[in-house]
Amino acid sequence: MKRVSIKDVAKEAGVSASTVSYVLNSTPTESISPETARRVMDAVKKLGYIPNLNARSLSSRRSNMIGVLIPQTEPGKELMFSNPFYGELLSSIEYTARQHGYHLLLSGTKEDQDYLSIAQNRGVDGIIIVGTYPGENLNALKQLGVPIVLVDSYVKDEAFHTIGIEDREGARMATRYLIEKGHRQIAFVSGSIRENGVNIKRYQGYCDAMQSAGLSVDEQSIYSGTVDYDYGITAAKEYVARGKKQTAAFVSADVISMGLIKGLQQNHVRVPEDLSIVSFDDVYLARMANPALTTVHQDIGEKGKQAVQLILDAAGFKEHRHTECILPLSLVERESVREWRNQP
Amino acid sequence: MKRVSIKDVAKEAGVSASTVSYVLNSTPTESISPETARRVMDAVKKLGYIPNLNARSLSSRRSNMIGVLIPQTEPGKELMFSNPFYGELLSSIEYTARQHGYHLLLSGTKEDQDYLSIAQNRGVDGIIIVGTYPGENLNALKQLGVPIVLVDSYVKDEAFHTIGIEDREGARMATRYLIEKGHRQIAFVSGSIRENGVNIKRYQGYCDAMQSAGLSVDEQSIYSGTVDYDYGITAAKEYVARGKKQTAAFVSADVISMGLIKGLQQNHVRVPEDLSIVSFDDVYLARMANPALTTVHQDIGEKGKQAVQLILDAAGFKEHRHTECILPLSLVERESVREWRNQP
Repeated sequence: MKRVSIKDVAKEAGVSASTVSYVLNSTPTESISPETARRVMDAVKKLGYIPNLNARSLSSRRSNMIGVLIPQTEPGKELMFSNPFYGELLSSIEYTARQHGYHLLLSGTKEDQDYLSIAQNRGVDGIIIVGTYPGENLNALKQLGVPIVLVDSYVKDEAFHTIGIEDREGARMATRYLIEKGHRQIAFVSGSIRENGVNIKRYQGYCDAMQSAGLSVDEQSIYSGTVDYDYGITAAKEYVARGKKQTAAFVSADVISMGLIKGLQQNHVRVPEDLSIVSFDDVYLARMANPALTTVHQDIGEKGKQAVQLILDAAGFKEHRHTECILPLSLVERESVREWRNQP
Repeated sequence: MKRVSIKDVAKEAGVSASTVSYVLNSTPTESISPETARRVMDAVKKLGYIPNLNARSLSSRRSNMIGVLIPQTEPGKELMFSNPFYGELLSSIEYTARQHGYHLLLSGTKEDQDYLSIAQNRGVDGIIIVGTYPGENLNALKQLGVPIVLVDSYVKDEAFHTIGIEDREGARMATRYLIEKGHRQIAFVSGSIRENGVNIKRYQGYCDAMQSAGLSVDEQSIYSGTVDYDYGITAAKEYVARGKKQTAAFVSADVISMGLIKGLQQNHVRVPEDLSIVSFDDVYLARMANPALTTVHQDIGEKGKQAVQLILDAAGFKEHRHTECILPLSLVERESVREWRNQP
């Protein structure tokens, strides 16, 4: 079947091809009669015309920009990549976008007003928001009328597409693994535990596994700070100060584990001989660690890729359909866990 | 002194305040007579009017977007952050931009045409280019008429601002340090060595130090691949295959050192007992390494901050002045080097 061309659309609408091109490229401020624009768009729909994405001039109001918000909402956090997870995710988003001729309008803003007005004035074809984001700001974003994808958020709203993982199940898997290795005293180490964030889900998964095994969760086993290397070092000191009661830890992010291992070394606690660690994310760092981290693997590259794909699909001439995408998890065994059958 | 207001400009130009606002916000497609625009701009200059940056509507053609190009030009490299240096630099650029109400239009593109047309159509207030970039594309970028900052490039052109470090001197410092520690057989490990890039400068610095000490540089001591973790592992295998002739290595990027250490461990070569390593960059990883890396420290955060500052200065109502900024280097001693006074 012959591909529908811009000339076919022009003929159907009774206008010139350049008028079609003009309509598909026009910004709201440009002067074209609403009647003409409507006739052209009707013809586009009727014929199922798909503009050639490689031809910029025909690309139908597309800005070829995707907004990416990585709000720095962790208390005390200002820099975007103190957790390498964000770097890897952004890397994948950028790569996928680039393959489709798109570029990213990036911000780590907490104050959404600036970003909103830029996204509105300059136009973005969609927005990807990573992590938690205050509810009232999400409402403002809806007004932009572009597809929005929430990554790793537990905000439930039909207006947004979501991509995530089963954080609770992943944490349960990690904790259960430690229990199967004979550990009974298991610490939980994470960033701040907040509503709609991933850490509360991972905390719940940890509790699930402990309770299923008849093990109690006590306050002394919970370490909560920020998702970065330095907090890992702090947690190690705290672990020593609290009397080294646990033989294992489930740590909710690889970057914290990296700091934890360093901090433990400084305090002559060996991993995994004295403390076993199962971690979460499987960022590139996990393999670099010494010992290499046993961790819950999530496909960060796929997360970024799908986020962009959702925008491209939704920004096309397709109808809006709410999409909820859950990516699989697995446990990668490396060097940071030992069996704990007998007291040493 | 009273701040010059938009009303003062309007009075001077003999137009209404809304016309001034319109001129300062207009895009080239909007219809305003060139004569009126000129009168307004003359008045702006004469009175030294500075638009209030917080009032978007008065922000004088500013897009509040800074273009950031991190071209993925390394052979075989597609993802932006396989070297965490870029993540840290971008993090700093984003943070500084955000403090000033700016956002980033990010791309890892090699093909500049897409990016150019977006930068042109959507408007950016300046462009930061990180690393090497083909010369002919730089010429096309000049046409955009916005300030351009080259980071870590040895392209010499008065049209661009530059921010960099003395790569050659840093490499000399690192290699001399190993020589002072008693090493005579010293390997050089880096990404691909190309014209106008940083690696050739670091290679030259390595050669400088070797020659100053009367040491010869032979082909067997040179390892050149890609700037990533995996190449470090490859280089370790190669080192073993070549007969472990060197007692030390100067490695041109921390991320390669991380892989090198892992690869050496897999081959039962200990760092620093069997091979000492001095590295370059002092990314966050350097401290996380085990042993922690002795490395040439550069202030990556400052690099990003100054890049944004140069754009903001140049994009203001100031005259264009070519700025060349060289940031200082220092050597940070950690755990990856041992003295080599006697053969073991």
